[in-house]
Amino acid sequence: MAQPLIHHRTPQFSAVLDSVRQNLKPLFGTGQEIILLASSGTGAMEAVVANLLDPADEAIYVNGGKFGERWGKLIAAHGAVPHEVKVEWGRSVYPTDIEHALAINPATRAVFVQASETSTGALHPIDEIGKITHRRGVLLVVDGITSVGVFEQKMDEWGVDAFVTGSQKALMVPPGLAMVTLSEQAWGRVGKCRGRRYYFDLERELKAQRDEHTTAYTPAVGLVLGLNKALELISAETLPRVFARQQMMAEATRASARALGLQLFADNPAPGLTAMITPQGIDSGKVVRCMRDELGVWVQGGQDHMKGQLIRIGHMGYLSPFDMLTAVSALEIALAKAGHVFESGTGVAAVQTRISRGM
Amino acid sequence: MAQPLIHHRTPQFSAVLDSVRQNLKPLFGTGQEIILLASSGTGAMEAVVANLLDPADEAIYVNGGKFGERWGKLIAAHGAVPHEVKVEWGRSVYPTDIEHALAINPATRAVFVQASETSTGALHPIDEIGKITHRRGVLLVVDGITSVGVFEQKMDEWGVDAFVTGSQKALMVPPGLAMVTLSEQAWGRVGKCRGRRYYFDLERELKAQRDEHTTAYTPAVGLVLGLNKALELISAETLPRVFARQQMMAEATRASARALGLQLFADNPAPGLTAMITPQGIDSGKVVRCMRDELGVWVQGGQDHMKGQLIRIGHMGYLSPFDMLTAVSALEIALAKAGHVFESGTGVAAVQTRISRGM
Repeated sequence: MAQPLIHHRTPQFSAVLDSVRQNLKPLFGTGQEIILLASSGTGAMEAVVANLLDPADEAIYVNGGKFGERWGKLIAAHGAVPHEVKVEWGRSVYPTDIEHALAINPATRAVFVQASETSTGALHPIDEIGKITHRRGVLLVVDGITSVGVFEQKMDEWGVDAFVTGSQKALMVPPGLAMVTLSEQAWGRVGKCRGRRYYFDLERELKAQRDEHTTAYTPAVGLVLGLNKALELISAETLPRVFARQQMMAEATRASARALGLQLFADNPAPGLTAMITPQGIDSGKVVRCMRDELGVWVQGGQDHMKGQLIRIGHMGYLSPFDMLTAVSALEIALAKAGHVFESGTGVAAVQTRISRGM
Repeated sequence: MAQPLIHHRTPQFSAVLDSVRQNLKPLFGTGQEIILLASSGTGAMEAVVANLLDPADEAIYVNGGKFGERWGKLIAAHGAVPHEVKVEWGRSVYPTDIEHALAINPATRAVFVQASETSTGALHPIDEIGKITHRRGVLLVVDGITSVGVFEQKMDEWGVDAFVTGSQKALMVPPGLAMVTLSEQAWGRVGKCRGRRYYFDLERELKAQRDEHTTAYTPAVGLVLGLNKALELISAETLPRVFARQQMMAEATRASARALGLQLFADNPAPGLTAMITPQGIDSGKVVRCMRDELGVWVQGGQDHMKGQLIRIGHMGYLSPFDMLTAVSALEIALAKAGHVFESGTGVAAVQTRISRGM
């Protein structure tokens, strides 16, 4: 990305675009076309809403955190009718709750959910939800922003109809580039949909990207070049080893939480990040700021009503298991300063033990 | 931009965001707040349409090229009613034509126009249009993608109500970042407007960027850092000298066209680029490909019905007047190969003559 840019209406850029679009398919687990958009992940979320829902269409969304809530706002912003399946923060949705919501809202056009809810670290059971939506002929729309490239996704097998992600998590590229892929059934719907869109018009982008080997509007050229390189790194490491590495980092981080006496927030935690609950009386914001400002280790706190109560450590993308040693070491130092009592070094020892077991 | 990224929910990023937003104001000629969006310029165009027009609202747009045409498509995509002021490609719009269009469409809410129409190189008289729209209490929306940072813009003085641009022209940053600024009157309209938007919700972005010193959704962090650096370069050179340098490049390029017997396409050419008509019997696509593929000099051909007939040379952004020597030299070589007869070296001599006259 630091090299001089190439122009986007050239055979050189077309070759990169083709390669990126092709090499992303295994990360989604699909044979469908991948569409790139010059936006961050929320733009891709809006794109699927605007291309699949007519005004007044009914849609179910799973609200188990900040990003689930966002689906509801997007559906409403486009004049459609959101039906909420509320899930306690940190829990995974029960497929039966979706079954129930579909039964009482039989006109539902689509179900919107996160594969991994980044605000809580919870995993939702996309495969089981896919069976339900498929049986009822309802579209399944999945936010894969912290799942695509983190663990195996099987879009086609699971029956996902629209799948979105962004560049800045497992894909290791700065933010500002998003990706969308649709099933045959979803493409059929796009053609009939009267939702308002122009910049996010997926049919127009499909035509441009698949048939003309370019984008409809100016693409984020530098980020596309960066993504091409990132996909080369993934290909060299091989996808199964990328997944195993990230899984090992997740397990190492969680083992350290247990050793330090911190409870995990999610029942069924997603492989991309670990959300830990800070002990009673300790403000997680303080811990996070100490880690960041004094120790140079960047993690996140809780959002909305979980502000001050969570420490979220990401283990996606350009990281090695030994980076978790650094993260957990900084966590130990910050927790001790904040007054948490534990045996110093037990967190990093837990990380090392997990690494030594191998992938 | 090649340095390690910073996270976007941090005081470090907030400081950069504040600085960028502040330092962009003189480029627009405004005291209003600047909003950054993670999208290319078309996204910012859609943002102003979706935030200013209700469904069924009437809007006038100036269609004098590919980007003017885009306003019409955007207005229609959002369910509003576009009234076209058609302008022959290469011509500037007559203010009286806008006056006339407003007289026959008295319910018009806003006029949409380009400051500089990139597909033809023509300049539109924004100051004169602003007098007309201001008198009638109609909003004036301007695409400044090839004008902001190229020559002096006086948004507040001219009465522009919404002004958009992108990162990749005069601002010298890769594509994927766009900017919008609105007048008081336009902000008043946004509050009442029912147009559908979420990712491009300008009120939400104003609140996030002005009051919380961050963005509502993940920003294009790397591009914002790059823009901060670019604005430092502009500030060090000083804005008047940036404008004078680009003006000199425009004059040098146009002098070479005359010397080579090529006609300029625009009556009143914009300072950011020069569109030249290729001589009878010469395909401009061939000239452009020769310049690009054999000589490594990147210029553009004509679009749509002008395909094959135009050579467009950009002279915005990170370029020095001596770069025009290279561009014109490559143009001479490619034109000669394509069969155009002229005295070799007269183009580069014209460039040199203009440079020697000084700014």
